[in-house]
Amino acid sequence: MQDTKPFLKHIQFLREEIEKAIHQIPLEKSPTYFYDPIKYVLNGKGKRLRPILVHLTGQVYSSDPEGLMKAAIVIELLHNFSLVHDDIMDEDDVRHGQPSVHKKWDNASAILAGDGLFVLSHLIMTGLSPYIHQRFNEVSLAICEGQGMDKEFEHDASITMGNYLVMIGKKTGSLLGLSAEVGALIREDSKDSAHHLFEYGLNLGLAFQIQDDLLEIYSSEASMGKSLGSDIHSGKQTALTILAREKNPDQWKNFIQNNNAISDYQSYFESHGIKAETEKVIQHYIEKAQDGLNEIPEEKRDNLNQFTTMILNRTY
Amino acid sequence: MQDTKPFLKHIQFLREEIEKAIHQIPLEKSPTYFYDPIKYVLNGKGKRLRPILVHLTGQVYSSDPEGLMKAAIVIELLHNFSLVHDDIMDEDDVRHGQPSVHKKWDNASAILAGDGLFVLSHLIMTGLSPYIHQRFNEVSLAICEGQGMDKEFEHDASITMGNYLVMIGKKTGSLLGLSAEVGALIREDSKDSAHHLFEYGLNLGLAFQIQDDLLEIYSSEASMGKSLGSDIHSGKQTALTILAREKNPDQWKNFIQNNNAISDYQSYFESHGIKAETEKVIQHYIEKAQDGLNEIPEEKRDNLNQFTTMILNRTY
Repeated sequence: MQDTKPFLKHIQFLREEIEKAIHQIPLEKSPTYFYDPIKYVLNGKGKRLRPILVHLTGQVYSSDPEGLMKAAIVIELLHNFSLVHDDIMDEDDVRHGQPSVHKKWDNASAILAGDGLFVLSHLIMTGLSPYIHQRFNEVSLAICEGQGMDKEFEHDASITMGNYLVMIGKKTGSLLGLSAEVGALIREDSKDSAHHLFEYGLNLGLAFQIQDDLLEIYSSEASMGKSLGSDIHSGKQTALTILAREKNPDQWKNFIQNNNAISDYQSYFESHGIKAETEKVIQHYIEKAQDGLNEIPEEKRDNLNQFTTMILNRTY
Repeated sequence: MQDTKPFLKHIQFLREEIEKAIHQIPLEKSPTYFYDPIKYVLNGKGKRLRPILVHLTGQVYSSDPEGLMKAAIVIELLHNFSLVHDDIMDEDDVRHGQPSVHKKWDNASAILAGDGLFVLSHLIMTGLSPYIHQRFNEVSLAICEGQGMDKEFEHDASITMGNYLVMIGKKTGSLLGLSAEVGALIREDSKDSAHHLFEYGLNLGLAFQIQDDLLEIYSSEASMGKSLGSDIHSGKQTALTILAREKNPDQWKNFIQNNNAISDYQSYFESHGIKAETEKVIQHYIEKAQDGLNEIPEEKRDNLNQFTTMILNRTY
């Protein structure tokens, strides 16, 4: 088995550099109504997976580190903007183990904080190429469309796995795609590889989100930093509920009419083979993601392969 | 007296061209959850004052019409993004005579629609100069800060006219400033004049907002397209309430303890000279705005002078 220590040490180093850069974003003191919630978000315990991915891909192409850090921060801010607004829309009151912005303050503060994070991401983008600007905006639109689909799909028993994959591709996949792609785009001469890297990130994002659905049922509340099963309770589509509905429509319909505890869902998904099937879907997208890395010379693929494995093995 | 007909005809022409351009923004059909509210906003009865100003200034500098229209639409979208989100934050249920987005749909739809308008504005901006991008983002940040101050100032009896002017300068003035400035910025060789034009728009914006405060008390509900006095009732600072408080603190404190009708406010502001004082402040900022036009050759100033007068004489 591969020694993962050097890789994990590298990830730790990147995470610390990213945290430093986030804390160096120049922010005024007042109005505190606007800036305090933004600072609260930036001090949160995010895993910083997207900016780490920007650096890992960028290192493959020996891209300019300063440009890479800029793009990494832009993407992390865009991600946080969407989390803050999504948490209001989805009434999710806990994020990274602490109260969401709209819970700690109120909806108005959270709307404005999200807007501010988005504006800051654009201010920091200054100086990156027009094409990177364009890709960033295209992906921002995709994220909004994905969130629109997610809301539209709530409580709709006709949603198929196909619909679901389009939705999470936009909502989650596109930004991981951009994170991988931008590492190459920072070097103008690596544009040709960018498309393959986007595919890598997109498929990794699909695997990531489906695994999130799985962790929502099978992880512990302590490690998830939020209550389990909340997506199911709020009528959200998840890979498991769609697969369960598609496999045994009548049985599933009867099952969900009960007031089920999380352990009931766990046994249902296990006894009906839904858990195993979900794991197969995750594996499928992980493999598709790895195909996207074939563009990269084999000797330079190692960190991204390990990153993929790290995502696959995460427990929260 | 000057014949205003040719000017008004020109404004009408610009407004129609702007409406056409807005309706040519490429928008998908689905997800309808995301796109329907955006279309509803873009079909609203906005006065399009900001994009008209972009064109009027741009024409002084014979700026490229295509670039001007792009900038005009970008600014109108940014304006609409901020209206949609502000209406949620301020619980304003009517906008341009019809239900606000959060009232017609719900908060989640309105948050997402605002985000989408902002993303679209950035997508349309593609191809404008990096400096225009930067100015756009700086002004977006100012608008957020202004909204933060506006919320922070609610129900705070210590807010001075000075605080208020800073707030409306950011929230309203900065975007009118950018609208005037960008007309010159589209031509790279007109950068030197841009600062003066920003000052023109900024001061025009201050006059505009203070006049809005006046119209909120003295206009009719039919022409305002919303109920009168709503800012006062929600504890917002306005030029009239601050001037009234600063002039006769105790008397004002007693007065507002009653359950006043709009007609009570009207007589209070008139009998205490607050209305007259407010009109003087508006006149002051209109004159300051006109100073900003001294940069422009006298024979080319006419349209902008008439635009200023039009703003000053508006009844809604």
